[in-house]
Amino acid sequence: MSGLRVFYSITITSGESIHDRLQTICLEQSAELPRDVIQQMNMAHVMGRPESIRHCSGDVWLAEIIWPLENIGGEISQFLNVLFGNISLMPGIRITGIDWNSVPENLFRGPLFGIAGIRKAWNIYERALSCTALKPMGSTAGKLAGFCYEFALGGIDIIKDDHGLANQDSAQFRNRVEACQRAVVRAQEETEHTAHYFPNITSSPSETLERAEFAAKKGCSGFLVCPHIFGLPLLEELQSFGLPLMVHPAFSGQLVTNPSHGFTIPFLYGQLWRALGADFSIYPNAGGRFSFSMEQCLSLNKECRNHNSPYAANWPTPGGGIQRETIPQLLQLYGENTVFLAGGSLYQHPGGIQTAAREFSNMLKPL
Amino acid sequence: MSGLRVFYSITITSGESIHDRLQTICLEQSAELPRDVIQQMNMAHVMGRPESIRHCSGDVWLAEIIWPLENIGGEISQFLNVLFGNISLMPGIRITGIDWNSVPENLFRGPLFGIAGIRKAWNIYERALSCTALKPMGSTAGKLAGFCYEFALGGIDIIKDDHGLANQDSAQFRNRVEACQRAVVRAQEETEHTAHYFPNITSSPSETLERAEFAAKKGCSGFLVCPHIFGLPLLEELQSFGLPLMVHPAFSGQLVTNPSHGFTIPFLYGQLWRALGADFSIYPNAGGRFSFSMEQCLSLNKECRNHNSPYAANWPTPGGGIQRETIPQLLQLYGENTVFLAGGSLYQHPGGIQTAAREFSNMLKPL
Repeated sequence: MSGLRVFYSITITSGESIHDRLQTICLEQSAELPRDVIQQMNMAHVMGRPESIRHCSGDVWLAEIIWPLENIGGEISQFLNVLFGNISLMPGIRITGIDWNSVPENLFRGPLFGIAGIRKAWNIYERALSCTALKPMGSTAGKLAGFCYEFALGGIDIIKDDHGLANQDSAQFRNRVEACQRAVVRAQEETEHTAHYFPNITSSPSETLERAEFAAKKGCSGFLVCPHIFGLPLLEELQSFGLPLMVHPAFSGQLVTNPSHGFTIPFLYGQLWRALGADFSIYPNAGGRFSFSMEQCLSLNKECRNHNSPYAANWPTPGGGIQRETIPQLLQLYGENTVFLAGGSLYQHPGGIQTAAREFSNMLKPL
Repeated sequence: MSGLRVFYSITITSGESIHDRLQTICLEQSAELPRDVIQQMNMAHVMGRPESIRHCSGDVWLAEIIWPLENIGGEISQFLNVLFGNISLMPGIRITGIDWNSVPENLFRGPLFGIAGIRKAWNIYERALSCTALKPMGSTAGKLAGFCYEFALGGIDIIKDDHGLANQDSAQFRNRVEACQRAVVRAQEETEHTAHYFPNITSSPSETLERAEFAAKKGCSGFLVCPHIFGLPLLEELQSFGLPLMVHPAFSGQLVTNPSHGFTIPFLYGQLWRALGADFSIYPNAGGRFSFSMEQCLSLNKECRNHNSPYAANWPTPGGGIQRETIPQLLQLYGENTVFLAGGSLYQHPGGIQTAAREFSNMLKPL
């Protein structure tokens, strides 16, 4: 049967049957009416339909539900609603995956560039990419641009704004973008290395679009965005600028930190963000300041790159406390189709930013 | 000391000190750099500062952190980032409240109408309001408009689209809005009762704004919106239409369902939505299809209406499985400054929709 195929991990409470729970989900996310009313109205065809149920362990079951494509009505916003609208308020429901080949063909565009597109556009083959962040908030635009210049001289591939750089008086968006973009251009003239500056354009939707336009006009290579702040559906609109999107997980953790609720880590930062157009998926790496396990990170990386998806493979971008010393080992684990994001540990280098950047970049060069 | 005052409930892990945890939060949500780097850069002034710590029970502590107002830079998006951006990815952190008088004065507008404004605009005093939903998805615009007409004849105050009615082929947005708005006008001509139709305008940000404009032009009385789908910062832009906003909790549950993480129920649906401009805060009522307790609901109601906030008091709007029979009891508990949202149980009435609506409306009339 055709329809949107969604996979769930469901934790039932004692005395409850998994079949009843699935029926509840199938009703809640569609007709939202009592069963007798649905039958009387002859509207059962709008409901989701359980397709498979498998016992996992204890009170946990794995299930697949098929949703009528008509319910989505061709919109990403309504897709999100069908996926997790009202059931977000019910405990014990976790989404583990979607069969992306069951999604209507033109609903998601996927990454504009992805791994292959970035490699081609930037002419970088056979190595991983380096990325760092301009910080801290409260610094002047001149100070941040100075860091940007040093990082570029040191050979970093992508220099992004910290996601906390918004439009504070200390470094207003337009001043900062002009200064930092000039810095990467100047470094390029001096070294022939191209560093790509990605400003943080996150704001209200209309202001985000204006910042995107300004940054694109100034020659920036891409955008840093926090879609869980401005709303996931805006990503599609941002693709109209034709530049790569680096997606940051700010304000998203509540979707993945509860092991029996929300989304799995590989589903959100791998599958869903990829469909929504993330060229780079930033996530908090295992062993850093956050709580993802190495297994979860590897699984996330896989979802960014696997071939079962109709969308271009994108770049897993581990960050959040990557120490310089660990990069060679991580490179071996994660492979060359990875962007390594190191921030604090570069600022911490006793030899200064440029030296830190050069050491970091050299670690990623093929032997 | 001036600054944004945020209150937290923090669960520490064994062996961890609450002081270390607070320092981690103060760094993570501001400078996002190692402590030695911050000191060397002389940037400690951008960090949050713990103001009070109190042991609650077991591993749980209550704390207040004061954040420099400069970090917010006058934007709701960055306010959300300071509030819960990166720490959303760390377990054991729950936000319980904000001192709204510490928030920069023009950052939030609060409800345009709220309780007092709606009473005045609609000339309804001294009673609670009734609300229902048009459903199910998959019905034609004509069918939904027929329900709308019956509900209006029966005396319902607010008839909203189900939040799952988007732009599906079965009842495209513009057709549906025209038909349903005509239905309430026709019922008003026949009965002199004014029913207010609130279409669901939730879509991508730009399309949401277009739908708002269309609905406003057609004479609709307000909008139903799902801001956790299109993004919280859009609410501010939607206020420019000068119509009341009824806010729906779809896709928000992950913020409140984990007792040691995210936001408390009264904080999100009471405090934060009120600041963001919700005139009506829809939430899943205790005893319905969802899992909120009566205590949580009463506490949420209080946050909608209390006088400690600089924003207009707004309407708590309990829904999600309210049975007709329970309304008199709920009215006694919740009081007249409440909107009661009953959907399924009206469709289920053996006497038909109009009869159900009339019984429901009569239950809310003052004796």
